[in-house]
Amino acid sequence: MSKSYLSMTKEELLNEYNSVKAEYETLKAQGLSIDMSRGKPGSDQLDISDGMLDVLSDGNFKCENGLDVRNYGLLDGIPECKKLFADLLEVKPENIIVGGNSSLSLMFDYVAQCMYMGAGFTPWSQQGNVKFLCPCPGYDRHFAICEYLGIEMINVPMTENGPDMAVIEEAVKDEAVKGMFCVPKYSNPQGITFSAETVKRIANLDTAAKDFRIIWDNAYCVHDLTDTTDELLNIFDVLPEKNKNMVVEVASTSKISYPGAGVSCIATSVENIKEILKRLTVQAISYDKVNMLRHVKFFKDANGIKNHMKLHAKILKPKFDAVIDTLEADLSGLEIAEWVNPNGGYFISLDVTGGSASRVGVLCKEAGVTLTNVGATYPYGKDPTDSNIRIAPTFPTPEVLSKAVKVLTTSVKLACLENLCK
Amino acid sequence: MSKSYLSMTKEELLNEYNSVKAEYETLKAQGLSIDMSRGKPGSDQLDISDGMLDVLSDGNFKCENGLDVRNYGLLDGIPECKKLFADLLEVKPENIIVGGNSSLSLMFDYVAQCMYMGAGFTPWSQQGNVKFLCPCPGYDRHFAICEYLGIEMINVPMTENGPDMAVIEEAVKDEAVKGMFCVPKYSNPQGITFSAETVKRIANLDTAAKDFRIIWDNAYCVHDLTDTTDELLNIFDVLPEKNKNMVVEVASTSKISYPGAGVSCIATSVENIKEILKRLTVQAISYDKVNMLRHVKFFKDANGIKNHMKLHAKILKPKFDAVIDTLEADLSGLEIAEWVNPNGGYFISLDVTGGSASRVGVLCKEAGVTLTNVGATYPYGKDPTDSNIRIAPTFPTPEVLSKAVKVLTTSVKLACLENLCK
Repeated sequence: MSKSYLSMTKEELLNEYNSVKAEYETLKAQGLSIDMSRGKPGSDQLDISDGMLDVLSDGNFKCENGLDVRNYGLLDGIPECKKLFADLLEVKPENIIVGGNSSLSLMFDYVAQCMYMGAGFTPWSQQGNVKFLCPCPGYDRHFAICEYLGIEMINVPMTENGPDMAVIEEAVKDEAVKGMFCVPKYSNPQGITFSAETVKRIANLDTAAKDFRIIWDNAYCVHDLTDTTDELLNIFDVLPEKNKNMVVEVASTSKISYPGAGVSCIATSVENIKEILKRLTVQAISYDKVNMLRHVKFFKDANGIKNHMKLHAKILKPKFDAVIDTLEADLSGLEIAEWVNPNGGYFISLDVTGGSASRVGVLCKEAGVTLTNVGATYPYGKDPTDSNIRIAPTFPTPEVLSKAVKVLTTSVKLACLENLCK
Repeated sequence: MSKSYLSMTKEELLNEYNSVKAEYETLKAQGLSIDMSRGKPGSDQLDISDGMLDVLSDGNFKCENGLDVRNYGLLDGIPECKKLFADLLEVKPENIIVGGNSSLSLMFDYVAQCMYMGAGFTPWSQQGNVKFLCPCPGYDRHFAICEYLGIEMINVPMTENGPDMAVIEEAVKDEAVKGMFCVPKYSNPQGITFSAETVKRIANLDTAAKDFRIIWDNAYCVHDLTDTTDELLNIFDVLPEKNKNMVVEVASTSKISYPGAGVSCIATSVENIKEILKRLTVQAISYDKVNMLRHVKFFKDANGIKNHMKLHAKILKPKFDAVIDTLEADLSGLEIAEWVNPNGGYFISLDVTGGSASRVGVLCKEAGVTLTNVGATYPYGKDPTDSNIRIAPTFPTPEVLSKAVKVLTTSVKLACLENLCK
């Protein structure tokens, strides 16, 4: 373990600065061009689902209830695909609407519906200022939905057990606070799974707003990386009667089959399902049922999906290891950065405590490594302490990743030393 | 040709009533159960696109610009699919966004965007009452979008050349009139194609609203039934500069490939495309690009689609003929009903002039034939003269259709005679 920068003398710091600066220049001279900005699977991951593409060649297009999936109809999805998602999320098929290729669209459309048509009461937009709680660091596209719809975002700090519940329990006393975005399992970007205690406290929230909604984005519900998997309590199992319509869960196969051509779903109370279908029946005739059948025939059941995820894990684990190993080798002991080693998900979150994350982003960019825009993990793109960096290790190969993370760790050190040597 | 009911004596009418009533009872006794309510292709039509389902088995998932269609990205669609639709609609690829399986969703989302975010100006919903012009009889799902979003609908009568332009030109002097829905080719339900003169007058409308939008639903752009095809003037070719953002066209392959699993598109000005993408970039990461590539590989180009449509026509023409032949044999000369024999599209529109359409609907239903809900072809489901009946002849076989239309014509006669014999 290296000596902490915080305990170095001025002279030691200057020596270290010169050495790190030289190393940075060497790395920069490699002329790298590596993109670690997006949580995108590699093409080897996509390949493992290609069997799906000719699974319909038997010419049988009837779904369980006898309807032809190629034709119009079945607004809430084909029965067998509803069952597949229901089993995966441990709810009943009646609680499921199967969507198109994007759970993001399901979330956008639902929040927009609450804004303009209401969530069982007067539309949010007609009740004055609307606020959402945003555990952060979090997913930039959740924040983008709020920003687009004119919803004020309130930062809620993440802890190792999920969002800070004391902050949330206090905030929901404000009737203008209408909802919250959560990624409860292998959170984006930290890979944190909400503890059972956190899930219970969320389920039992005593909100001033009668029309409070939690968007429970279970994007990584089966996205384990190791055999040491995190367990997420099923929030519907602990939801009290008074909050029965509070949770709207979404999931998708974007990172199970194809990001561009998967199937998504919404899981929520029957009452909410009815409200959503009132809109959906005007907005669409059905989602793509051929693709639903393709997924069901390929995966067969929830276990089929879980087994399939092991193939992904096999590809992803070495990539996560390459990042974690380099972070540990280069940064541990320096007391200038912290990170979580997640058991699943798509990201590694790095907190730079001794320098500015935005400076690290610039240094990486100049050396040919593109990170997720620094700040993007916070509402309005503003990280209040300019410390969080989201690493998306899934797309490059482990070898390329090691190079990229070397650039990153060197940039972290350099940014920190620039500060300390001022 | 039979003798007109209008020139019959009371006694002749009573005799005719007794004879038609007996015929109706005989038909009813057959115990039919025929659904002619929806514009749904038959499964033989779906079969002709099945080659599409293994067209990706070559394992080449790269689209023209080198991106893997299975992965994230390309919000506005893959280049070759943009080109395919651009060629089909005779616009440039830069004017195209390729969507998911539903042009209805593209329309819903766009009109909602205008309502809540605006069409270049203050959101419609913040400008007071919002009105739309609805040529009718028309498509019930257009009306449903207006109704859901709280847009007041104004009926505009259809003529054989399209909507009554004098009515429209007068109506758009009201600034609250923000838009209009049109099905310009083989209109739903009449199968009327707007004349060149109509298209030009629409293009040159002098609207009081600066943010007036025409939803140009070109659902049947290549859906010819015969070699005598209707020609629709390309409205973008005659659009004056002042109205350059006025037209938002949509189309889809719902009735080219699969209703449940086709590809849709929007065609409009580059300025409108930019406005739409501002929303779309928050709402989705991309539509299903694998399905886009599947369509491009299967159809190859716009000509491929046009040739494919001839296969549909071959199946559909005998069905339309079965309906028209029965209508002519049973109703011509009676002066109690009128219909259009369309050159394309998905419907035949029957106007009952001598009786009530709703009574005909009831009589058909009692004899086992389900029509589209009478009234559905008008805003708010209210046909002011209770005369229009939409016949959807695509799903049943010609033999079944003949039986069904026999029930229909007999019901038309009976409903009329019930009135005349009162």
